[in-house]
Amino acid sequence: MEKISNIVFIGAGNVATNLAHELKSKGLNILQIYSRTLNSAEKLASAINAKFTVKEEEILQTADLYIVSVNDDIILDVLKNINLKNKKIVHTSGSVDINIFSNITDNYGVFYPLQTFSKEEIISFKEIPFCIEANNLSFQNQLIELANIISEKVQILNSEERRVLHIAAVFACNFTGYMYLISNDILNENKISFDILKPLIQRTAEKVKKIEPIEAITGPAKRNDIEVIKKHLIYLEKFPEFKKIYKDLSDSIIEYFNNKNNTNVKL
Amino acid sequence: MEKISNIVFIGAGNVATNLAHELKSKGLNILQIYSRTLNSAEKLASAINAKFTVKEEEILQTADLYIVSVNDDIILDVLKNINLKNKKIVHTSGSVDINIFSNITDNYGVFYPLQTFSKEEIISFKEIPFCIEANNLSFQNQLIELANIISEKVQILNSEERRVLHIAAVFACNFTGYMYLISNDILNENKISFDILKPLIQRTAEKVKKIEPIEAITGPAKRNDIEVIKKHLIYLEKFPEFKKIYKDLSDSIIEYFNNKNNTNVKL
Repeated sequence: MEKISNIVFIGAGNVATNLAHELKSKGLNILQIYSRTLNSAEKLASAINAKFTVKEEEILQTADLYIVSVNDDIILDVLKNINLKNKKIVHTSGSVDINIFSNITDNYGVFYPLQTFSKEEIISFKEIPFCIEANNLSFQNQLIELANIISEKVQILNSEERRVLHIAAVFACNFTGYMYLISNDILNENKISFDILKPLIQRTAEKVKKIEPIEAITGPAKRNDIEVIKKHLIYLEKFPEFKKIYKDLSDSIIEYFNNKNNTNVKL
Repeated sequence: MEKISNIVFIGAGNVATNLAHELKSKGLNILQIYSRTLNSAEKLASAINAKFTVKEEEILQTADLYIVSVNDDIILDVLKNINLKNKKIVHTSGSVDINIFSNITDNYGVFYPLQTFSKEEIISFKEIPFCIEANNLSFQNQLIELANIISEKVQILNSEERRVLHIAAVFACNFTGYMYLISNDILNENKISFDILKPLIQRTAEKVKKIEPIEAITGPAKRNDIEVIKKHLIYLEKFPEFKKIYKDLSDSIIEYFNNKNNTNVKL
């Protein structure tokens, strides 16, 4: 089986930055970084000693693999002026169907690391679940081999499974990140440091390593403690948007456990 | 200063169970556990070699401190048949005002550990922020001394500050726990193991140790990636309640960052 050695990145965002660093550190050749944003292309390229360009026509034609890592809704727009006929292409998105590439080339796939990345902190991929999909077995095997170099948790998922996983990840990661953001804003307003919440945040995440989320959840809504919820809503008058979220989520939690309990009684 | 040595717990839930174990392990005498639920009282008492009772009139009168750790909305109801005149009393709640005890005794306060607890896993208090409040300085100093034995992060907070902190904690911990629960349910429906999300959950929590929540947040709503959000909402038709939460939180995140950006432009 032909091995993937030379890679071009199309995109220089959070995922591309972390993935390019990781592949480089494992001995792969990152030939070039393309991005529409000069600053992003230049910064990533110089960090990993690669070339860069902001011009579609200058994208190198010699790579074994083109990794497209841009916002989902501009993938096709970015690709329309790039000649990738007969090239091997993957994207790194949770929710984009593999067939987005079907009119572009004969070897296409998905190379999706299930993690939240930031350019500011480059992390190891060892523990990151890697979801692979390809339109043919030979290319799929190449992608698995490549992923195995950087991650111990490589698996094959089809586009439908990957989308479900991405939706679950939006709840577990993105919405959770918004909860942190809200709590930070509420504390800031009261000149209390966010530091005080950090052990609680860590512990909340650690709990579900060992026990089921339904056993781990605590708090006024879980306990159906209406008096506390009412007091909190009164305080939150000064944050109307956060008050709405507090009320909606508390109602939903109460209903969730009411339904669970009713179901149990009926069994 | 008189030292607190002998403690009675009123309540045997998650907080009481963890706190009683911790105090016992640091050499304090846990004289007795009272709970309305025989099984809870008996289980905690036997684990830490204390007495127990389910009868108010049997509560020992010899303790230096009575720690009331029951659901917020039943604190007064539980106490109304217990003679605690002239005793030292604290509760362990984030949102209950210190003055709830003002008609009961002359020495009262709050002993609030900011953490999420489960009976199933007894944890160390070393890193747990401990919030202290008392109605007089002498008792406050006793409580600080006691808290210092088990935690390195003891601080004085008044009832108003503590409520704000508790509200922030509901977002950062309880609602986050609900997000984990939803993601678990979505994966279960598709026979995908929740294990695959665990590195992402841990990383999301770790990120905000070092970078501000507003910098850490990622995802389709943060990127204003409407096409992905639409696809996710179509999938979530089969979970109407989760679909509503997905839509409301995505709308809120988009609005949050729109406002932020507008504000920035105006500056």
